[in-house]
Amino acid sequence: MKTHMKAAVLFETGKPLQIISDIKVPSLSKGQVRVEILYSGLCHSQLMEVRGGRGEDKYLPHLLGHEGVGYVTQIGEGVTKVDVGDKVIIGWIKGQGLDAPGGKYPHQDFLINSGSATTLSEQSIVAENRLVKLPNGFPEKLAVLLGCALPTGLGLVFNELKPQPNKTIAVFGLGGIGLSALLAAKLSNPTKLIAIDVNPDKLALAKQLGATHCINSTTTDPVTEIYRLTEQVGVDYSLEAGGTTQTIEQAFESVRDGGGQCIFASHPSDDLKIQLEPHAFHRGKSIRGSWGGGAQPDKDIPLFADMYFEGRLNLEPLISKEYTLDEINEAIDDLENKKIVRALIKIAQR
Amino acid sequence: MKTHMKAAVLFETGKPLQIISDIKVPSLSKGQVRVEILYSGLCHSQLMEVRGGRGEDKYLPHLLGHEGVGYVTQIGEGVTKVDVGDKVIIGWIKGQGLDAPGGKYPHQDFLINSGSATTLSEQSIVAENRLVKLPNGFPEKLAVLLGCALPTGLGLVFNELKPQPNKTIAVFGLGGIGLSALLAAKLSNPTKLIAIDVNPDKLALAKQLGATHCINSTTTDPVTEIYRLTEQVGVDYSLEAGGTTQTIEQAFESVRDGGGQCIFASHPSDDLKIQLEPHAFHRGKSIRGSWGGGAQPDKDIPLFADMYFEGRLNLEPLISKEYTLDEINEAIDDLENKKIVRALIKIAQR
Ligand SMILES: [Zn+2]
Ligand SMILES: [Zn+2]
Repeated sequence: MKTHMKAAVLFETGKPLQIISDIKVPSLSKGQVRVEILYSGLCHSQLMEVRGGRGEDKYLPHLLGHEGVGYVTQIGEGVTKVDVGDKVIIGWIKGQGLDAPGGKYPHQDFLINSGSATTLSEQSIVAENRLVKLPNGFPEKLAVLLGCALPTGLGLVFNELKPQPNKTIAVFGLGGIGLSALLAAKLSNPTKLIAIDVNPDKLALAKQLGATHCINSTTTDPVTEIYRLTEQVGVDYSLEAGGTTQTIEQAFESVRDGGGQCIFASHPSDDLKIQLEPHAFHRGKSIRGSWGGGAQPDKDIPLFADMYFEGRLNLEPLISKEYTLDEINEAIDDLENKKIVRALIKIAQR
Repeated sequence: MKTHMKAAVLFETGKPLQIISDIKVPSLSKGQVRVEILYSGLCHSQLMEVRGGRGEDKYLPHLLGHEGVGYVTQIGEGVTKVDVGDKVIIGWIKGQGLDAPGGKYPHQDFLINSGSATTLSEQSIVAENRLVKLPNGFPEKLAVLLGCALPTGLGLVFNELKPQPNKTIAVFGLGGIGLSALLAAKLSNPTKLIAIDVNPDKLALAKQLGATHCINSTTTDPVTEIYRLTEQVGVDYSLEAGGTTQTIEQAFESVRDGGGQCIFASHPSDDLKIQLEPHAFHRGKSIRGSWGGGAQPDKDIPLFADMYFEGRLNLEPLISKEYTLDEINEAIDDLENKKIVRALIKIAQR
């Protein structure tokens, strides 16, 4: 077990992450688990943290990343859910087990902070309740999706929206969450499944995954087009993961009067508000926010893994490009520029 | 049965209503019922219609008012729900029976339009499905409340929100709907029942009807005060009937994270939007619009009348002032200036 490690560290919002190679790994406290990371995911949340979209960051400098896969090298007091040698999924959504703070990593004359689940480092000190054992035989590279995108995107559909069959559904924003939601929505057998994004490659991917109609919102107004596609009625359901207040507003406008349901996963910057027509509520549209897809990791991860094993979830296309930890800033730029669906950060190979 | 009648007519939005005395009452079509009006109510909807807050009005000139009490003088083909001589409540919410358009009243060389339920005239041609028989012994003056304010305000609580007992509740806006909602909310036995308005008289009335705390929003920020009154948690439920986007926004902000529910009845002008913080949804606040309190008049009116007979609903204070039909413009001004809770327009006495 190495005593020092490499990690991507956020020292200042709005600046690139710094790769630091000689961070000391502290000993474990109660409820903490030491994990050697194999792969980490990267999602809009890290992009927002790095760019400063979450307001003042009181924890600087700190580690980040909240979805990954690795194996346990040490367990702290009280930990019973996992054992040394177990392959585990790290995710930000709380599950069973002890809650614990993240590690405080000594470096030079200061401490580097971390949350209860961070993944952009060779090693990580993770709270027991942010870990789930990797289901046997599940591919490591896809496993990072089980830490964030899949519970959020699939959970948004299976746990929260629960669409009826034979309905019309629109999916706004085809990142990891949006595409996962699209995969799940497809399983409800919609009569129309409309995908909206700004990137033609992602729209092509959505078509491959089952979208019946694709709208490129850089050239076509999605609300107008959705009403055109639905005989001016609007869709029964809209799922939003486009990341902006505008996509949330469009998703709300796109659902039909008299029972249309919009659910959104996006967390725009803290200072922004969504603007909604009050009469639309009276006409019977509704909107709600999704919090991690209502996922219970210990129940949902094995369930979603089984669906994958049964061939019902075509997950491979969701991982679009692999980067090393040293290339982390390039990966963040590519995500910001919507070049990729979901970056995979390869930290180590066992 | 008189062949001509007096009515308040809207010829142009933004102008006062005109009192016309010699309007001819046409014969009945299928599903229509002729009612001689005793009392009409007056609510924010008429104010909005008269002031032009509902956008272009394609039906000018037309009659208005959508809550009243009267007696049936004639029934059209197919009508079985009421008979000549029955005292009836007229309301805008659809119930059982035939749907039908309102009357077209010939006057000089043009027709005066009306909806399926209008009440600001000596006689009215009403669709069968907008009528419910007046429960025996229910006071005529209070009966107008059963056409709009009570089904909307009580229904908002009993049919839609369904609050758990021992919770904290805030009511924004103490007009007919807000006070009805407050009466209903009180019956759920809240630990705190906070009333918010701009008018000290209405706040005093709310206290009399069971509010535990009153906030005058002209001098105190209601959101800050609600958080102060709830140990910075926010209320479990907020009911909004304040009529503006601001009161809807405040009602949403006032509910607690992790399950707080806001329901709003207001219909602000069509061009206005409400601005909501998307993160508040993720933190577990929810908002929905009420459509007529989810009321089913044929079921709810007898139910609410029974609650009144049992002494559980103190309705008398909800009617604040009586006007004649000739004084209709004064009543509208008083409503606009929030001088009165609910105006009662006396049309005739039997
Ligand atoms: Zn994530
Ligand atoms: Zn009304």
